[in-house]
Amino acid sequence: MNRLTPLLQQLIDALRILPGVGPKSAQRMAFALLERNREGGLQLGAALQAAMTKVGHCQQCRTFCETELCAICAEPARRADGLLCIVGTAADQLAIEQTGQFNGRYFVLQGYLSPLDGIGPQDLGLDLLANQLGAGDINEVILATNPTVEGDATAFYIAELCHKQQIKVSRIAQGIPVGGELEFVDGTTLSHAFSGRKAF
Amino acid sequence: MNRLTPLLQQLIDALRILPGVGPKSAQRMAFALLERNREGGLQLGAALQAAMTKVGHCQQCRTFCETELCAICAEPARRADGLLCIVGTAADQLAIEQTGQFNGRYFVLQGYLSPLDGIGPQDLGLDLLANQLGAGDINEVILATNPTVEGDATAFYIAELCHKQQIKVSRIAQGIPVGGELEFVDGTTLSHAFSGRKAF
Repeated sequence: MNRLTPLLQQLIDALRILPGVGPKSAQRMAFALLERNREGGLQLGAALQAAMTKVGHCQQCRTFCETELCAICAEPARRADGLLCIVGTAADQLAIEQTGQFNGRYFVLQGYLSPLDGIGPQDLGLDLLANQLGAGDINEVILATNPTVEGDATAFYIAELCHKQQIKVSRIAQGIPVGGELEFVDGTTLSHAFSGRKAF
Repeated sequence: MNRLTPLLQQLIDALRILPGVGPKSAQRMAFALLERNREGGLQLGAALQAAMTKVGHCQQCRTFCETELCAICAEPARRADGLLCIVGTAADQLAIEQTGQFNGRYFVLQGYLSPLDGIGPQDLGLDLLANQLGAGDINEVILATNPTVEGDATAFYIAELCHKQQIKVSRIAQGIPVGGELEFVDGTTLSHAFSGRKAF
């Protein structure tokens, strides 16, 4: 017999929309907040309301931000080299940004081409990207899309756009990950590692 | 370099108060909501606000509810046998309720006696419990506290209260869990299982 009160049940159901949260975790989260951290729960509620309503997309690179341009697009130094890195998601952008190695601009697709799911070039802002490629201040496009079927298809599509504008285009290397063991690396990755070998 | 906008960073920080959610999961949750489910994020925000402000405690058994009495305390049939089960948390109550085996009332301590953490009898509502024990409609108290040092201490304390009122008091059995393998059961549990053996 389920004896949870309506508000508690609503909270548990609502928590389950979070990725990786099942019925048991949701229940544990709800009780933990009610027992020990109502103040934190209220803050989380307010943060959710604020972020869901106010966080939009950068007008230039489509990453998440609440202003017209994100911090990276607004910084002139990041445009000096004319490098543009194409990533699938804001999380990918963050991962690259955390390496501290890349000092150009980004374009965040917020997804990959997937005709079966009805995701076409418009949904990824590829018209916006084409305009930027035509503006003449980009020297090289670096494709950092996922090494998946959708990521590959999207990379090919964008490479075509670059070729039309005669802009140099490259894709980040595929090979064995640092710290990985050769024995456990799949065949396709090993093939990529061989064909992409560099003089030592 | 951290390039997250303030609202996004606030959301990620706020998500980390949830038990079991670290920095990576919080980031994944925030992006997942922004990318795919803003509606759900808003609902979660509203559910949190409502639950944190409106869910209180049942006046009789101290479980979480937004009315004066919870559904169990409000039901006369649950008082017929005069059975009162003492549990540590609302989650424990829910677990027992889901077995469908117990048809009496509960008293939810919302914690255990722990002098080092400054948790005394008042914090667990043991004065409220003593009043209820004195009212004369309880025939047996079943202690279903955790088999831990704090749970044991709390059980002893409540057993004393019952003895004063000459109310029968019992504790749920400690022994090997169903489906467990004897080989991997700890020694204390095995001792409990031997001393608590039943005629077969």
